Amino acid sequence: MSTPPLAGGPAGPDALRPLVDTVLDALHEGAVARGGPLPPGGPTAITDHIRTTLTSAPRDAPHTGTAAPGTAPHTEVIPHTGTGAREALRTLVRAVAYGAADPAHPRCAAHLHTPPLAVAVAADLAASALNPSLDSWDQAPATAALEHLLTRALAAEVHPTGPDPDALVTSGATEANQLALLLARERHGTLGTTVQTVCAASAHHSVHRAAWLLGLPEPVTVPAPDGTLDLTALDAVLTGLRGPLLVVATAGTTDTGRIDPLPEIADLCDAHGADLHIDAAYAGPLLFSTARRHLLTGLDRAHTVGLDLHKLGWQPLAAGLLAVPDRALLAPLAHTADYLNADDDTEAGLPDLLGRSLRTSRRPDILKVAVTLRALGRTGLGVLVDQVCAAAQHLADLVEKNPALELYERPTLSTVLFRPTHADDTTVAAIRRALLTEGHAVLGRARSTDGRVWLKATLLNPHTTPDDLADILTLVEGSTAR
Amino acid sequence: MSTPPLAGGPAGPDALRPLVDTVLDALHEGAVARGGPLPPGGPTAITDHIRTTLTSAPRDAPHTGTAAPGTAPHTEVIPHTGTGAREALRTLVRAVAYGAADPAHPRCAAHLHTPPLAVAVAADLAASALNPSLDSWDQAPATAALEHLLTRALAAEVHPTGPDPDALVTSGATEANQLALLLARERHGTLGTTVQTVCAASAHHSVHRAAWLLGLPEPVTVPAPDGTLDLTALDAVLTGLRGPLLVVATAGTTDTGRIDPLPEIADLCDAHGADLHIDAAYAGPLLFSTARRHLLTGLDRAHTVGLDLHKLGWQPLAAGLLAVPDRALLAPLAHTADYLNADDDTEAGLPDLLGRSLRTSRRPDILKVAVTLRALGRTGLGVLVDQVCAAAQHLADLVEKNPALELYERPTLSTVLFRPTHADDTTVAAIRRALLTEGHAVLGRARSTDGRVWLKATLLNPHTTPDDLADILTLVEGSTAR
Repeated sequence: MSTPPLAGGPAGPDALRPLVDTVLDALHEGAVARGGPLPPGGPTAITDHIRTTLTSAPRDAPHTGTAAPGTAPHTEVIPHTGTGAREALRTLVRAVAYGAADPAHPRCAAHLHTPPLAVAVAADLAASALNPSLDSWDQAPATAALEHLLTRALAAEVHPTGPDPDALVTSGATEANQLALLLARERHGTLGTTVQTVCAASAHHSVHRAAWLLGLPEPVTVPAPDGTLDLTALDAVLTGLRGPLLVVATAGTTDTGRIDPLPEIADLCDAHGADLHIDAAYAGPLLFSTARRHLLTGLDRAHTVGLDLHKLGWQPLAAGLLAVPDRALLAPLAHTADYLNADDDTEAGLPDLLGRSLRTSRRPDILKVAVTLRALGRTGLGVLVDQVCAAAQHLADLVEKNPALELYERPTLSTVLFRPTHADDTTVAAIRRALLTEGHAVLGRARSTDGRVWLKATLLNPHTTPDDLADILTLVEGSTAR
Repeated sequence: MSTPPLAGGPAGPDALRPLVDTVLDALHEGAVARGGPLPPGGPTAITDHIRTTLTSAPRDAPHTGTAAPGTAPHTEVIPHTGTGAREALRTLVRAVAYGAADPAHPRCAAHLHTPPLAVAVAADLAASALNPSLDSWDQAPATAALEHLLTRALAAEVHPTGPDPDALVTSGATEANQLALLLARERHGTLGTTVQTVCAASAHHSVHRAAWLLGLPEPVTVPAPDGTLDLTALDAVLTGLRGPLLVVATAGTTDTGRIDPLPEIADLCDAHGADLHIDAAYAGPLLFSTARRHLLTGLDRAHTVGLDLHKLGWQPLAAGLLAVPDRALLAPLAHTADYLNADDDTEAGLPDLLGRSLRTSRRPDILKVAVTLRALGRTGLGVLVDQVCAAAQHLADLVEKNPALELYERPTLSTVLFRPTHADDTTVAAIRRALLTEGHAVLGRARSTDGRVWLKATLLNPHTTPDDLADILTLVEGSTAR
């Protein structure tokens, strides 16, 4: 066997071209074979399909020069002898495309699981092919510069009046929440005391997980009877606590898309001397919408702000950020390893990247973001935000007009909670699972503060039409699980 | 502006095809314009180039139907109005390809920074386009199944006799080390005591960072006079410590590629009742080499093993794993969020994925790994491992034969440390920086236990020829910094 070709260098693109063609063909074939938002059959059928595919003999693929037809069927997940690049790509990509819950399908609307833009996906191919690693300048000269410029520009959107806005690239708001708690822990570490996190009952589960990870006390939970942090209760909690405090507010909750009252929370934090982190994973990109950025008033008063451009930013995973008003706030992450940032190299002008992440090797997720922002501009991104928020309003209208359905509340962002009128919680959950296992629709679920279970449509697809929305409701009404 | 196309669905591939063509053309143009392993000029020149590119007006690109020629030059990193997908891709991908330190170039050999295989990069495009997220089954039916099957098969390579081998997919060995320390912390949490980490001076810096992150005591460092953990010193350290202990051994150190004496370390751990984690980020894929897998004898005796297929596995970032002999060891990561893994959904058979990572949203890095393993087979991957290890032996031969150069030691894996005879440390470091800023070569640096600085060639490119290796030495000998 000759040495398989690399993706990089001047010859890389020619090696990639036929393989990428194979991938695009397989993606198309898989999507056509699937038909709907996900295949029918549920977990057992899909796992069986993948197991059979993985352990199959090479397909009789006409373009597969390096495959070995006639060899015995594989019986192992990791074969002894390879089937060749094009056979492997065709077989496995087709299988995972068939077996996807594809967020580009208008009836796949369960989670903050975005259908990525083609331009962002194409840009991400360049990140894979060049494979820069952002732990040292000599592995990523250009992408380190790109990250430097873009993160500061994005941070300035969040903290326009900050003294030196900067942002770290994260794997998502879960990591942004971890970093926010870690930075708070380290800011107050010299006091010999432990920072106490305070968050609403509607905050993301990762806030609790981050406290556990970092060895911090379990967050104190403040009630959120309407889905947002209750100000009176927050005031009482902050009054009753001693020592350094970190309040975590949410701009765009996972369950309902509600935005906590940010200016009032910032005022209470000021009054009690508490630090403020805002998890704006969902709502953050409203900054690009002229019509909706006012909903984020107060965002710039936080010490740290998390946002995910793999939600309302239409990036493939991952594209998270943690923004700060002042780069100095990131100092606790400073870290040295002689082979990556020796003092004499840093003094000689080689940028020190190691304090910009807890990871060491790190993919340049900023490239796809930079390309998307240049391609669409802030205006183009804002239009997409407005489109999905408008779709949610339309879906809420349809639910309100339909006596067979109940609407939880008017949507704030692009999340709509509803359920069949008179259905009990067990039935609501069963309807969701039936739509999933029949391959008809991917809807989410959420539990309201009164304990009731709702179907959740999280609309992130800007191509979704009013007819698509009506179809979702028709499927719910006609579900076999009712 | 019409809504920009998505990457997914049956229409996605047709939308992607012209954009991917633009990316491949831009990658080629950038690589040709660069010529060498990285562009000349150092950080200032490259940052200026990226800044100018980011704030430039749209190029006069003949294929760019949606660009707006004649608009005023941008002055902002995030433009108000977009330039269109093809202009943005062409401009920015070309700039980052030009400004890359390209591991596919044979004179780019500083770090464990791999030149990815074309087949793996092509497969990764499918992950971006489908955008499954591995935090719940209904976002990733097929890729969840693929991860389930592949991680168990890979874990069985590491722990063939384990009761229920399993592996978590990580962003790299840094995260694998974090998880290993976290699992040890939680295993011993019920005792009310804190686990003490013990590692060699040659262990990866991320072991220390993980202990800090997790609120654990600073690791006790054992001397490694020859680059591997000293057994007598380890025995003494373990004898002197009380409470639960975790020893971290390394299979393939970052500086020299040395492998700690794994069976003897495992024996000492048994004798002292200590847990064992092995960071096999570098050497792990020797499991696929018939000629070299014996170097990993003892690997299967660890509670946890980290390995990175974005090193000797030729995957684009990220492709890390944490393998365990028994899935039950992962129980401390169990985590619940009602919207992702409600009890009634889990009871109804929907797989619960949330305990397989500390992340929530998670890209399916396993897809490119699965495609590569099917394409090459274990044999094909083993051949690549052997090729780069053979190249290191050849480079060491060349250094030994050259009186103007000094070899640190014969290589264990694919890392070769050398320096000009009679040069002092300052000169060695300056030669490295001169080769970088002149655009001639990307070499690493390492400090030996006696404090001397060495040039480091980490050979991961299976296409590197003997002439390429001779060229590296010629450049070092002729460096202007001498």
